[in-house]
Amino acid sequence: MVGKTAGGSAKPLLRALQGETLERPPWWLMRQAGRYLPEYRELRAKAGDFITLCLTPELAAEVTLQPIRRFGMDAAILFSDILLVPRALGQSLSFESEGPKLQPLSETAGIGELNTGDIGALLAPVGDAVRRVRAGLPDETALIGFAGAPWTVATYMVEGGTSRDFHRVKAWAYRDPAGFTALIDMIASATLDFLSLQIGAGVEVVQLFDSWAGALSPDGFDRWVIAPTKQLVEALKERFPQVPVIGFPRGGGLLAERYVTETGVDAVGLDTAMPAGFARDRLQAHAAVQGNLDPVLLLAGGAEMRRAVAEMRRTLGQGPYVFNLGHGVLPETPPEHVAELARMLAEPVRAG
Amino acid sequence: MVGKTAGGSAKPLLRALQGETLERPPWWLMRQAGRYLPEYRELRAKAGDFITLCLTPELAAEVTLQPIRRFGMDAAILFSDILLVPRALGQSLSFESEGPKLQPLSETAGIGELNTGDIGALLAPVGDAVRRVRAGLPDETALIGFAGAPWTVATYMVEGGTSRDFHRVKAWAYRDPAGFTALIDMIASATLDFLSLQIGAGVEVVQLFDSWAGALSPDGFDRWVIAPTKQLVEALKERFPQVPVIGFPRGGGLLAERYVTETGVDAVGLDTAMPAGFARDRLQAHAAVQGNLDPVLLLAGGAEMRRAVAEMRRTLGQGPYVFNLGHGVLPETPPEHVAELARMLAEPVRAG
Repeated sequence: MVGKTAGGSAKPLLRALQGETLERPPWWLMRQAGRYLPEYRELRAKAGDFITLCLTPELAAEVTLQPIRRFGMDAAILFSDILLVPRALGQSLSFESEGPKLQPLSETAGIGELNTGDIGALLAPVGDAVRRVRAGLPDETALIGFAGAPWTVATYMVEGGTSRDFHRVKAWAYRDPAGFTALIDMIASATLDFLSLQIGAGVEVVQLFDSWAGALSPDGFDRWVIAPTKQLVEALKERFPQVPVIGFPRGGGLLAERYVTETGVDAVGLDTAMPAGFARDRLQAHAAVQGNLDPVLLLAGGAEMRRAVAEMRRTLGQGPYVFNLGHGVLPETPPEHVAELARMLAEPVRAG
Repeated sequence: MVGKTAGGSAKPLLRALQGETLERPPWWLMRQAGRYLPEYRELRAKAGDFITLCLTPELAAEVTLQPIRRFGMDAAILFSDILLVPRALGQSLSFESEGPKLQPLSETAGIGELNTGDIGALLAPVGDAVRRVRAGLPDETALIGFAGAPWTVATYMVEGGTSRDFHRVKAWAYRDPAGFTALIDMIASATLDFLSLQIGAGVEVVQLFDSWAGALSPDGFDRWVIAPTKQLVEALKERFPQVPVIGFPRGGGLLAERYVTETGVDAVGLDTAMPAGFARDRLQAHAAVQGNLDPVLLLAGGAEMRRAVAEMRRTLGQGPYVFNLGHGVLPETPPEHVAELARMLAEPVRAG
């Protein structure tokens, strides 16, 4: 973890990620910019497809800022997509109603058909979007950049989209570990370039989304989640020692502790299933923790939501903590529930 | 756990489930009867739809016996489906290429539209299938019956099929815990009848599949996985004290320990992500453990599969253990890989 910045002037998110326990923990929400907001749906309808939205700087910046204006989270997260990296590597990509669709990479062809062109040039509009967001953010609001972790990006590249059982990508990894490592390394290198571009343009924190970490066996988790994340974090720290890294190994369960102690992340995102007591007792001594309200509780709202939020803050708020969901905001979420959450989170944590 | 049966004459599966450590642990595979077998595909093509296959005793029995003839597992598992219970409760059910489809139960209508008719009469063909299987099984081969656990069955009934985020069923549970409890209780009661029918006809073990246990928050896991499973296990034990119950809380991760100590199951199924060391150190003292080779390793085969199988048996074979996969056999699995696995599992466990 990098040293604490001097004084109380640092942004609350950065202070928490640097290990400080705050009376009022900072908050933001995964997918806080998106379909649950009418102003997003309006802009999306004008932009046409999702990729255009991501790669048109003024639109991506506007969408990023929308939830900040409404709810005043402590951080904006750049509106972008983890699949821009495979697209920059030369895979065709489209977003259908059932999810993203890529031309699957085949085990026999391997990575030969991919290009290792200049990621910085290909994804330059993302840098422009970052600069526009920074110019539009309040002083106390941090800006988070992100990328998919290599394993999760590999699942999309090999399966051609989301998957129920991940048998194509896992069978490749089992049958040809050397060839699969070459793919992982290639993704990691492009990801390092992508995150460097974002940081160079002004993001202050990066999050690595390993959304499908939970699909692996424990051995696979070691090889394809922990090892490449550790390498990527080391490379990032060498270039940008001051930028905190949040890792989100979704479904990591019992292996979250090793993830935290071995990868060198500054903070760990907790998924919905993670017991707060375990996070407090076993993870928070090693890293800040971030999470993990069930997104369905934000959708449902009411007394159950309020009770869960209060309890989560009591359990995790005694150490370095960032309030968030355990997964992304659901499109069906009423914005008024987010407004109510924002009001609750503006208060200091009350002890049990 | 029920007492050990006298002598060495009991079937290996029953001995392991009663807490005995066997030199050669018994084995079977989830979805061992199914699409990866050409003889299954042939019979399925003749039968027409999947529900007909489940509810035609001679066909269901034949399919159940197919893998036993080829590979000689220590147990057959009745060919059936967890969604026969919602169907018996009056929900329309069909199987499309993308998965099961039900007319979703709505939160506003609640359970009023369901019938609580005589499950035993409605599912009588399943009992006939059980009797036919028992007549066709070798003496040493046990017969396992099964049902979905109430939570998992409820997800299908409310979502109308598989789901990515389970927001309909979880929102119902959060907004109207009393109404949702009524649904869970109704499913549990029908499930008790369904399992009683199977046991009455000759199954010797039952497994409760809680495939979507991992979708819940820790609090939800307590309320909708542990509590109804505990009640169901108690009711089963009251009626059939001699029948072991295997619980399979897939995705339970850190909460598997509480599941084992609180529900009263005789054995716990381990999913692919569960570290064998944790299962040995924290679960095996309370219950037999069953699992958990990655189904993709069985699909991929080769040296990686052999190494993983040997290591798993070394780690878990020092206590009561049933070898299985961490999830069902994948349709793309070559039957020769299962034959190779059967040869490996015929040997005693070798110490590390």
